[in-house]
Amino acid sequence: MRLAARPVGDVKPEDWQHCSETVEDPGPGQFAGRTLAISLDPAMRGWLDDRPSYLPPVGIGDVMRAGTIIEVTASNHPGFQPGDHVTGVFGVQEHVVSDGKGALKVDTSLAPASTYLGALGMPGMTAYFGLLDVGALKDGETVVVSGAAGAVGTIAGQIAKARGCRVVGIAGGPEKCAMLTGELGFDAAIDYRAEDVRKALREHAPDGIDVYFDNVGGDILDAALTRLAMHARVVICGAISQYNNTTPPAGPSNYLSLLVRRARMEGFVVFDYAQRYAQAAQEISELIGAGRIKVKEHVVKGSVDDFPETLQMLFRGENVGKLVLELV
Amino acid sequence: MRLAARPVGDVKPEDWQHCSETVEDPGPGQFAGRTLAISLDPAMRGWLDDRPSYLPPVGIGDVMRAGTIIEVTASNHPGFQPGDHVTGVFGVQEHVVSDGKGALKVDTSLAPASTYLGALGMPGMTAYFGLLDVGALKDGETVVVSGAAGAVGTIAGQIAKARGCRVVGIAGGPEKCAMLTGELGFDAAIDYRAEDVRKALREHAPDGIDVYFDNVGGDILDAALTRLAMHARVVICGAISQYNNTTPPAGPSNYLSLLVRRARMEGFVVFDYAQRYAQAAQEISELIGAGRIKVKEHVVKGSVDDFPETLQMLFRGENVGKLVLELV
Repeated sequence: MRLAARPVGDVKPEDWQHCSETVEDPGPGQFAGRTLAISLDPAMRGWLDDRPSYLPPVGIGDVMRAGTIIEVTASNHPGFQPGDHVTGVFGVQEHVVSDGKGALKVDTSLAPASTYLGALGMPGMTAYFGLLDVGALKDGETVVVSGAAGAVGTIAGQIAKARGCRVVGIAGGPEKCAMLTGELGFDAAIDYRAEDVRKALREHAPDGIDVYFDNVGGDILDAALTRLAMHARVVICGAISQYNNTTPPAGPSNYLSLLVRRARMEGFVVFDYAQRYAQAAQEISELIGAGRIKVKEHVVKGSVDDFPETLQMLFRGENVGKLVLELV
Repeated sequence: MRLAARPVGDVKPEDWQHCSETVEDPGPGQFAGRTLAISLDPAMRGWLDDRPSYLPPVGIGDVMRAGTIIEVTASNHPGFQPGDHVTGVFGVQEHVVSDGKGALKVDTSLAPASTYLGALGMPGMTAYFGLLDVGALKDGETVVVSGAAGAVGTIAGQIAKARGCRVVGIAGGPEKCAMLTGELGFDAAIDYRAEDVRKALREHAPDGIDVYFDNVGGDILDAALTRLAMHARVVICGAISQYNNTTPPAGPSNYLSLLVRRARMEGFVVFDYAQRYAQAAQEISELIGAGRIKVKEHVVKGSVDDFPETLQMLFRGENVGKLVLELV
């Protein structure tokens, strides 16, 4: 799936172009594979805009960038054998040829392939380092997570619960909220579509928010800023509510509570923590094994043609947990 | 000078009430004094609003809160003798009775009385801890200061220069800018009234901003956010451009550059550093003595009746350096 045009606002079907091309054989030092599953991430929207960011934008005519898991079909690379399952940023395509750069062999007998795109992939890493390193979470603190029913939010909230924190999730709709407080064990959930978030935070975080893990931006960020505890940390992980805006994002007008509460707001990009992914994956695996993290995945089965429509599910809030397109 | 009404927007003369009252004698453990000079600070505007902040609001009918320097005229307090010069939050009034709480004896043979309200008072402390502790300034970094010709900005910029940093000041008008780059030795100055701040920052901070010390908020904060270096620190000291707003302050719509640049934005309140004021004052004194910090003061001579009008000078940007009302 190649990018045909720079989208303005919502990504439209005509912004994409599906090309059929001859599958190349792997050259020296390369391997080839077929894609098993494709990760869909809110960050993808930012990659489509031609402006400076932490990665260069996807070029017009380029295969869309995406994390995927593939099965190796042929290899001239000593590190990868046919049958191996490998994750990497291989893009939205059925067949892949790679020199192995950024590729990681994974064991799908320990966890399903899709989990290596979610709890044990970038979303899991993002939750882990955002909460523990950037947020400097301490045991027993009050944590509020927005986008709480998403890929990152579900993991972040459960890591915080595992550390003995009081965890409040913000999500859209009663089903997501029930899942958070039921299956995932959050202490409270706020349905931002039905409730006054500011008032609900006053109720559910009566002593203030120590760590606010923000995936959404906009009004919800502004509401959270009114409820910070002293020395709070606001972790800026994303701003999905703003990504399809054609005007500049709404800035958090309550940012001066950073001053009043001696608080900080800090952004991060998970790639900076690559050296420590293995450590994080190990810890998350153990929490999954112990039943303290429940993996939520939203698997759409289809072909690469379904990528554009599946991506839009993220921005409509239709997914619960990690959204994955499994190629069948 | 007592607060007569909660101001809406700009503070108006009728928001104040000047009362003449009998001067009381000091009781047991108290001293009395006459006010020599009154500090005028942007933060005063926030103290007039009835909303939660780092200090309770000034009550209707209360003497306006202000840092001042007084001369002791009579004392039943063992720590203070007639003739002593003492700083404290004694308020906008000609005569003071105090139990000594928060009072600090100062030596006006070492520095003029007004300097204990400026470079060696709250503004100096604010510059010092904001830059070095919150901003975690490292030698040789690029520092941008807004409100650079004000009480805090002049000191912050010169402390950074003394640490070998590249220092860019943002101020209003050619005279202030000439003073910054001339007398105070800043590397560059940007006149926000005449220049495109974003473009000017690109020129004067070509490698990005490591520490942005913000006194003003609004559009200038937003411009600075577009020019952050990796791992930048944005120190939220104040937001004078927003204090007289009757609507919520404009939030920084470019806050997502915190994510792209792995940067943080952090607020602080100088009172938290009270235990270390003496250390900071010592270091600033030495820099003044060595000629590396030039003290800029804007002294208005008058009576407490001149307080309302003098306060407005801050919000019109009419002061250069520390604004002080000296009672004559």
